[in-house]
Amino acid sequence: MSITVEQRLADAGITLPEAAAPVASYQPTVEAGGMLYISGQLPFVDGELVTGKLGENVSEEAGHKAAEACALMLAAQMKRALGSLDRVERVVKLGAFVASTADFTGQPKVANGASDMMETIFGEVGRHARSAVGVPVLPLDAAVEVDAVVQVKS
Amino acid sequence: MSITVEQRLADAGITLPEAAAPVASYQPTVEAGGMLYISGQLPFVDGELVTGKLGENVSEEAGHKAAEACALMLAAQMKRALGSLDRVERVVKLGAFVASTADFTGQPKVANGASDMMETIFGEVGRHARSAVGVPVLPLDAAVEVDAVVQVKS
Amino acid sequence: MSITVEQRLADAGITLPEAAAPVASYQPTVEAGGMLYISGQLPFVDGELVTGKLGENVSEEAGHKAAEACALMLAAQMKRALGSLDRVERVVKLGAFVASTADFTGQPKVANGASDMMETIFGEVGRHARSAVGVPVLPLDAAVEVDAVVQVKS
Repeated sequence: MSITVEQRLADAGITLPEAAAPVASYQPTVEAGGMLYISGQLPFVDGELVTGKLGENVSEEAGHKAAEACALMLAAQMKRALGSLDRVERVVKLGAFVASTADFTGQPKVANGASDMMETIFGEVGRHARSAVGVPVLPLDAAVEVDAVVQVKS
Repeated sequence: MSITVEQRLADAGITLPEAAAPVASYQPTVEAGGMLYISGQLPFVDGELVTGKLGENVSEEAGHKAAEACALMLAAQMKRALGSLDRVERVVKLGAFVASTADFTGQPKVANGASDMMETIFGEVGRHARSAVGVPVLPLDAAVEVDAVVQVKS
Repeated sequence: MSITVEQRLADAGITLPEAAAPVASYQPTVEAGGMLYISGQLPFVDGELVTGKLGENVSEEAGHKAAEACALMLAAQMKRALGSLDRVERVVKLGAFVASTADFTGQPKVANGASDMMETIFGEVGRHARSAVGVPVLPLDAAVEVDAVVQVKS
């Protein structure tokens, strides 16, 4: 018998946040051609946006937590769009943008916060392709932004 | 009776630009698996590339107009590739890159220029997922670059 | 009679590198919905990562070679995932991230290293849509990172 994603979340003691409204004129998600495209999500921890830059005023550990928070918000958007996380066939691709000074090169470790959280939530189904890059600044001075493409069960 | 996208453009007094040739060795668009993937488009206003950085020498208003110009060029590429804009089933995802100094955090407002223009052109069909990030510099010193994934009617 | 991609590689004297393991908790590729999504690949030349920034300590020519190396690694990942490069129906989209100082605007010429290599390897099948942007810094201080979406023969 396979465990549901909701059971897995409960077992891990994870509560998803309320799905955030877009900060501008776009949709949080669009489903098309069997895929759910999810807008870039910002990191909210205890309701507060994690701001700043890696290499300056955000530690690698804080950046890792921020990336986890982005993944939780991506999952919250999946649940809002699909009704149940068990409709996720596969997390296909994450795009991780890490606000970085020009000498901070630890983007993979930061982005692992999002990648590991996807596997915690979805197990095998959560294993994805990824790109992770540094950027000089993100919307609202966020420390991390992550978007996603997810395959949906038909 | 549903209004065509061409009628909507005429009603809004919008004329699409000539679809720009790629600035390098790639295709402006590729159609695959029911989706049209459109290369990153740069902002041409009255035939001139909008250059510079937000937070330095490009105002938020000028950045917004540059993003509108990117959206018009995306639509011009769709029309060139599909023959008619009425073959667009859904604008699925925009990726907005805003040339920014490290302290400019208004990328969402800038990128809204592209998002709002998509809704002006396509109505409900134009409502999309999006990510918007700051970058230090873009090709040819462009102020904004936007790429897109669009679902095509079969 | 059509030439196979393996024959084309042999004719061009190109040997693919060993497919690199991910530098973190993600998959090199995910196949879903008829597409292969490939994680961002870093440039290894003679087994050494090409590091630094365009506009600072990496010349445009060295950046171009780094982008070629990213394309070779993308092809190596395709081969590992699909068994044969002849299962590639179309290279659909490349995303090129070029580590750049704020005044380096030659990202298209650098990214052409990847685009031209795709056409060298795959011919017509290798012609793709693309976005190319500057970023302040990449994982492990890499000079270039390129990800891809590829359509797969069913």
